[in-house]
Amino acid sequence: MSEKDISGLVIYSMEGCPFCLKAKGFLVEKGIPYTEIPVAPGSDAWEEMKQVSGSEYTPQILINGEPIGGYADLVNLYATGEVTERLGLSSAGEPVDLYDVIIIGGGPAGLNAALYAARKVLKTLLITKQIGGQLRDTWEIDNYLGYSGEALELIEKFESHVDNYDIHKRVGASIASLDLTGRIKSVKTDDGHTFYTKSVILAMGKRPRTLNVPGEIDFQGRGVAYCSTCDAPFYTDANVAVIGGGNSALEAVIDLDKVARQVYMVSLTELTGDPILQNRVRTYSKVHLYTRYNTIRIIGEESVTGIEIESLDAGEKTRLDVEGVFVEIGLLSNSELVIGTLMTNQLGEIVVDLECRTGIPGVFACGDVTSVPFKQVTIAAGEGAKAALAAYSYLLTER
Amino acid sequence: MSEKDISGLVIYSMEGCPFCLKAKGFLVEKGIPYTEIPVAPGSDAWEEMKQVSGSEYTPQILINGEPIGGYADLVNLYATGEVTERLGLSSAGEPVDLYDVIIIGGGPAGLNAALYAARKVLKTLLITKQIGGQLRDTWEIDNYLGYSGEALELIEKFESHVDNYDIHKRVGASIASLDLTGRIKSVKTDDGHTFYTKSVILAMGKRPRTLNVPGEIDFQGRGVAYCSTCDAPFYTDANVAVIGGGNSALEAVIDLDKVARQVYMVSLTELTGDPILQNRVRTYSKVHLYTRYNTIRIIGEESVTGIEIESLDAGEKTRLDVEGVFVEIGLLSNSELVIGTLMTNQLGEIVVDLECRTGIPGVFACGDVTSVPFKQVTIAAGEGAKAALAAYSYLLTER
Repeated sequence: MSEKDISGLVIYSMEGCPFCLKAKGFLVEKGIPYTEIPVAPGSDAWEEMKQVSGSEYTPQILINGEPIGGYADLVNLYATGEVTERLGLSSAGEPVDLYDVIIIGGGPAGLNAALYAARKVLKTLLITKQIGGQLRDTWEIDNYLGYSGEALELIEKFESHVDNYDIHKRVGASIASLDLTGRIKSVKTDDGHTFYTKSVILAMGKRPRTLNVPGEIDFQGRGVAYCSTCDAPFYTDANVAVIGGGNSALEAVIDLDKVARQVYMVSLTELTGDPILQNRVRTYSKVHLYTRYNTIRIIGEESVTGIEIESLDAGEKTRLDVEGVFVEIGLLSNSELVIGTLMTNQLGEIVVDLECRTGIPGVFACGDVTSVPFKQVTIAAGEGAKAALAAYSYLLTER
Repeated sequence: MSEKDISGLVIYSMEGCPFCLKAKGFLVEKGIPYTEIPVAPGSDAWEEMKQVSGSEYTPQILINGEPIGGYADLVNLYATGEVTERLGLSSAGEPVDLYDVIIIGGGPAGLNAALYAARKVLKTLLITKQIGGQLRDTWEIDNYLGYSGEALELIEKFESHVDNYDIHKRVGASIASLDLTGRIKSVKTDDGHTFYTKSVILAMGKRPRTLNVPGEIDFQGRGVAYCSTCDAPFYTDANVAVIGGGNSALEAVIDLDKVARQVYMVSLTELTGDPILQNRVRTYSKVHLYTRYNTIRIIGEESVTGIEIESLDAGEKTRLDVEGVFVEIGLLSNSELVIGTLMTNQLGEIVVDLECRTGIPGVFACGDVTSVPFKQVTIAAGEGAKAALAAYSYLLTER
C-alpha cells in the first residue's frame, strides 16, 4: 500500500464472500464512497491485504490507510460517528462539501452546463484545465449565432457570463480519477483533492490529432486550423492546403473549393473517404491532389506562408505556397477516464441519449466528448444546457 | 376546379390504372412536382375531371389549369420542353428557382439553420412570419451563453449575423401548404408564391397556451411570462403568481421559491403534476396554493401589479399583489401543417433522430417544434446547426 493512494475508505473483498457484499451494501446505503480491491487467496493483492491489515479474512476495511477490521467493525464504528468523521463526511453520511453537480470540462458545453446548473440554484463545481476548450484552437469565429469576432473574446464573454453566477471553479486542475457508480460520486484531482457530488456532467471535449511536424504548434490559430466548418470562410481567395485523405479532409476540400483560390489536398495514403466525395473532389479544377505525400513541416513568419511535402514514392520534396493549412486527420476524444465505465463508441465518444444521460444514474455527458453528431460551439453549448436541465430533473426525483 | 388552386401540374388518377402509375413515375423520375386528385367512376372528382378535361379516361393531366391529355401526351409534351417551360422549370426538369434548402421559421433554430446552410454555400430561403420566434415573448434574457440583456437586442444580433450571408428571406409570409414527399419539394405561401427546394428544414417553434384573460396580452414581457427557466431570476425578492397545476407549473414554483418573496400557485383544478413535485411544493413556506381557482384578469399599469382570481367553490374573488405572472398551462406546437405527413408525438412535436431527420428524405426539423427535450434558445440554436449540417450531408450524397 505504501505507494498507493490511501485516502478514503478502501475495502479488500473476495468473490462469493457474503460479508464483503454486506459491507459494500452498507456503504452504498449510507452513501459512503469507497475503493474496492478484489483479492483471491495467494494473489499479490491478498498478500498486500494480509500485510496492511494483519488478517487473512475478507473483507478488510481501511480508512485513510488505517485498518478498521471487517463488516461488523464497520457497522459499529459507523454507529459512533467515527467513520463519517474520519472521512470528512457529514453525519447524514454525506460529504460535508457535497455538490449537487460537478462539471468536468470548461469548453462551451461545460460552461453552459455550469450556467444552467447555477440558474437552477444547484451547488455547482466546475473543474477544468482551462476555460474555453477547443475554442482556444481557433482564431476567429463567425458561427456562434449573434457573435462574430475573435475566439478569445468570445471565451471571455462566456466566462464573465458564468462568473455572474455562484459557481465554484477549479481551473488548472486535471482529473486523477472518477468514481461514478454510487449515489454519491467522487472526483479526485491530480493536486490531491477529492470532491463529492450527487451528479456529474462530463464535458471533456476532444482534441485534434496533430501532425507533429515543425511549425504546427507555432502557427496554430495563425494559419494552422483543424475545423473547415469553422474556419473555411476566413480563407476566401487564399491558397490553402488540406492534410488528410478521409471524409473530414474531403469535406474540408469541398468547403474550401467554394471560397479559396487553390486547394492542395495532401494525403499520406490514397484517398480513403467515401467514393461519392472522392469523385466530386476529383472534378474540381481548383483542387490539386498530392496522394502518398508526407507533410514534413509548416513554414511561416507572422503566419503560415507554406508547407513542405515529400513524395513517398519518388522521395522528392515540394514546397506549396499557402496561407492556410487544414489538418483534417481526425479528432481524439478526451474520454480516457471513463472508457470501460461508460458506454463509448468506436471513436471513444461517450454514448448519450436525447437527455445527455450515459446509462449510470446521475452521470451526464455533453459536447464534443459525446456521440452527438457534428462538433460545433453552438451545438456543444446547447447540449450543455440539456445536460444541466437533465441533471436538475434527476436531482428533483432522486430520494 | 374554378375555386381550386390550378397552378402547377395536376393529375387525376384512379386506383389500379396502369397509365396513372406510369405518368406519376415519369413525373417523379423527371423531378416534376405535381398534385394528385384521386377519382373513382361516378365520384364528384370524376365528374370534375370530365368537365375540365372533356374526357372520362384516367389519367387526365393539367398544367396551370389547361388539360394536356394523358400519359403519352405528357411524355410527348415533355420531349418538346413545353412541360418544363410552362411550369417554370429548368430543362433538366428542376425548377429554375430551385433552392438547396428552404427553412421555415425565423426563431433561433431557423436563424442558426440559415447561418449554417449559408456557410456551406447552400442556396437558402428562409420563410417566416417574423424574425425572432418565441424570443419576442421574453423581455430580458440571461441564458444565452455570452449574452445578457434585452431579448429584442439579441434578436437584432441574430438577424444582422444572418444578414452577413447570402440568404433569401420572405419575412411576413405564412405557409399555405407543403409538399414534402418528392425529391423536389414545394412550399406555397399564403401570398400565392410556390418555392421549390431539394431539402426543407422545419423550425416553426411553439406558442404558449394563453389564459385568454384581460391584461394578458397587454403585459406580455412586462410581468406576464411563459418560461420560468428563462425569467425566474428576474423576480428576485418579488411576489409572483404561477398559473397552472401540472409539472411545468410545479417546476416554475420550485424555480421561483428560490428567488421570489412569495409565490402564489393558482390552478383551475387540483394539482395534476407528479406527486414528488407536489409534495415538495407543499413543504415550501413561501408558497401559497389556490387550487380550484379561476384566473379572471391581470392588473397593472406600466407593468403587472396584481391578478384577480375567483374560487370555483365559494365564488368569492381575491386580488393577489404580484409583480410577475407565470402562465404555465402548456405550449402548443406549430406543427399543424405536417400532422399526418410526419411522425409527431402526443404533444404534436415532430419526432426527429439525433441528426434532426424526420423520416422523409431531405426533410429535417429543429428547435421547439421537435421532440428534442427542454425548450431553450441555446438548445434550439444548436439543433438548427445540426439540421443544416444534416441537410448539407444529405445534399452531398443525393444524386
